[in-house]
Amino acid sequence: MSHHLDTLFEFLRFQSVSADSAYTPQMLGCAEWLAGYFRKIGLSAEVHPTAGHPVVTARNEHRPDRRTVLIYGHYDVQPVDPLALWTRPPFEPAVEEGVIYARGSADNKGQIMAHILGVEETLKAKGDLPVNLIFLVEGEEEIGSGHLGPFLEAHRESLQPDVIAISDTGMISPDLPALTYGLRGILALEVRVKGPATDLHSGSYGGLAPNPATILARMIASLHDDEFRIAIPGFYDRVLPLQEWEREEWAKLPDTDDEFRKVIRSRGLLGETGYTSLERLWARPTAEVNGIGGGYQGEGSKTVIPSEAFAKLTFRLVPNQSPREIDALVRQHLQNICPPEVELTLSDSHIGEPFMSDPQSADGLAARRAVARTWECEPALIRQGGSIPILQTFQQVFGTDILLLGLAQPGCAAHAPNENFLVKNFEEGIRLNQALLEELAAVPAKS
Amino acid sequence: MSHHLDTLFEFLRFQSVSADSAYTPQMLGCAEWLAGYFRKIGLSAEVHPTAGHPVVTARNEHRPDRRTVLIYGHYDVQPVDPLALWTRPPFEPAVEEGVIYARGSADNKGQIMAHILGVEETLKAKGDLPVNLIFLVEGEEEIGSGHLGPFLEAHRESLQPDVIAISDTGMISPDLPALTYGLRGILALEVRVKGPATDLHSGSYGGLAPNPATILARMIASLHDDEFRIAIPGFYDRVLPLQEWEREEWAKLPDTDDEFRKVIRSRGLLGETGYTSLERLWARPTAEVNGIGGGYQGEGSKTVIPSEAFAKLTFRLVPNQSPREIDALVRQHLQNICPPEVELTLSDSHIGEPFMSDPQSADGLAARRAVARTWECEPALIRQGGSIPILQTFQQVFGTDILLLGLAQPGCAAHAPNENFLVKNFEEGIRLNQALLEELAAVPAKS
Repeated sequence: MSHHLDTLFEFLRFQSVSADSAYTPQMLGCAEWLAGYFRKIGLSAEVHPTAGHPVVTARNEHRPDRRTVLIYGHYDVQPVDPLALWTRPPFEPAVEEGVIYARGSADNKGQIMAHILGVEETLKAKGDLPVNLIFLVEGEEEIGSGHLGPFLEAHRESLQPDVIAISDTGMISPDLPALTYGLRGILALEVRVKGPATDLHSGSYGGLAPNPATILARMIASLHDDEFRIAIPGFYDRVLPLQEWEREEWAKLPDTDDEFRKVIRSRGLLGETGYTSLERLWARPTAEVNGIGGGYQGEGSKTVIPSEAFAKLTFRLVPNQSPREIDALVRQHLQNICPPEVELTLSDSHIGEPFMSDPQSADGLAARRAVARTWECEPALIRQGGSIPILQTFQQVFGTDILLLGLAQPGCAAHAPNENFLVKNFEEGIRLNQALLEELAAVPAKS
Repeated sequence: MSHHLDTLFEFLRFQSVSADSAYTPQMLGCAEWLAGYFRKIGLSAEVHPTAGHPVVTARNEHRPDRRTVLIYGHYDVQPVDPLALWTRPPFEPAVEEGVIYARGSADNKGQIMAHILGVEETLKAKGDLPVNLIFLVEGEEEIGSGHLGPFLEAHRESLQPDVIAISDTGMISPDLPALTYGLRGILALEVRVKGPATDLHSGSYGGLAPNPATILARMIASLHDDEFRIAIPGFYDRVLPLQEWEREEWAKLPDTDDEFRKVIRSRGLLGETGYTSLERLWARPTAEVNGIGGGYQGEGSKTVIPSEAFAKLTFRLVPNQSPREIDALVRQHLQNICPPEVELTLSDSHIGEPFMSDPQSADGLAARRAVARTWECEPALIRQGGSIPILQTFQQVFGTDILLLGLAQPGCAAHAPNENFLVKNFEEGIRLNQALLEELAAVPAKS
């Protein structure tokens, strides 16, 4: 087997499941192995203890006359349950028909290892890198990166980069790479409506007692208009309209509606009118009910008016919406709808800022040139529907541009059984790293 | 202690809980004791086995030249849980400050025993009754009267009355009796909305996948307009408008809003505008969500689009709405609202017809005279918000008028701990029976 796959397989055999303390020794072993590998290829490396799992950093010798690039990744993986659905043991990596199967192969060990091997090859061939490089590989990405923020704050000076590169997203298809320049943010809160003090007999009190489930339903219904546009006053005020180039760029992508239909398996797709599926997913905000409950939950019928009802809501937000502003609008709207006869309780909100970087910036253009050199085609310029909370942390601490250059396929089964990563994309990632560091090195320093 | 209370206490000591088969011997003992008591006062009596608990019937000698009155009641009682909340053992009846405390004291042993003792006194005083009398006392009222319909069908000829009297409802207050001439009917069904085949990540599919909780909320919201009038087309078409005399009669009743507020304990009462609380409760239909659920039910937030959501709905219906017709309207309305992108499943419906008798009929007037003789005041003419399903059975089998002359107080705690019945109302019930049989006897036979 090749040195590339050998090295990745060693990395993949660590059962580095961050969510379960039973795997703590494997987590430590993995972090130490990684630091050892960094040293072996000629970098200095440290394993930094945190209140949770350690952070591994590595760097070459930094010189003031060149730019500093930080490459972020994570060595922790998702739990493997349900184990029964794996066709091979998740921590015994294997290649079958050009596909690497193992937990962590795509998310994120395969992708970060491609960068490490790229750096190894450059150092071997040229004895030096074109940039000051920092690898930052954490062990808590799958459990919320709880200790990363304080770590970055504590090491801000020594870690401050000019640009950050992350390969933890995806490609469009095996031969079509992508630069992800936008992500949605999120606002999550829970709504509780309390009516009567206890469940009441609907014959004895129906018509008198406010029904909290009915009131809650009216609130939820009021979130959208008939076109499934969000009907909260002011909600769209700061939404960055889709640019003409974005609509053109995305219209050129392979049609994914059939694929969406296959995963969703509802009778149809449904969303805001006037936009394509990808536009709705990547560039338009949503209001979703994640859970709803109240009153009788058992079999058959029970003639009660429930005492209370709840709904868990999330709003996916897009650039340039401010989660804090939207939070205030949502609260005001719900309070305006709620009749005074019931008690409305809104939980604290969890928020995540939307992310946007400029693919036309000097670093964005450098990344696109690196991709073009690697694949011999331009990367698709895309956004994504989800959120990557650590991006905010990086932006807050360092204030630098972040380049998302994913290597995983849509069918990579991240977080699911039979996670996989194409050998071809792994090798391309190694070459991408070499091209990327060269291109980023050539970007003039900001004045 | 008096013969009246002695006899009632014997009856109350039977732990005749129909819902729990552990009490079957007590049920049988109670039925046999009752038949024995009927015989002791001079009636012929039978204990009729059914596939469930037995039905007890009793009768005097029937003569073709007088009217036949059937008095219905039940000897089964509700379970006593939560036992810890009783201030005395539920099957050890006691009188305290003029109030009888025991499970079944109000519902229904005290009320049916008042009729039995009334008949006993008439027989003792006069040697005969003014009517052909049938007592029908069943043992399954608290569990749905499942075997009563077939029993009535099988004995239709021997049981056919001219009029039916039932004391299983309530008074307005200790000195204010009531004739209940209307009850609401019911339509119950469950709505399920299925969207995606599985719960989906709201970041990866939000904006594409139909959210069944949102769709369901829109359906529920569509059931009412802003005035809390039901917005289903055709829903009110057959609603019998409140008569002027009813509104006047009910306006004279003591104000019960404070009492309703005390029980409901919401921030306020809420219902269809344009009607008083009693009018809404007694004479206006409702649409209630009894339970709602779907998606994530745990602590905190989970960013999923639920695969499905359900709501359990009941509609309280009023004369002359037809539950079958309303069922069709509700189904049509929900189907019209439901977008084709999701799958709507409506369960089979359970229905109960609304009940209405004419308080101005010859029998209604006779009952009112009997009440006036007993209490020296006219009964309030009222309806109730709930449903009594067996009334339908009686109306279907016998097609006769039904007089609801309740003796229980609003605070009688039927089905709850510390069930109670006023000694005063018990004694009044005994006198009511005597006046009632005389007044009903005097009603001319229908031509």
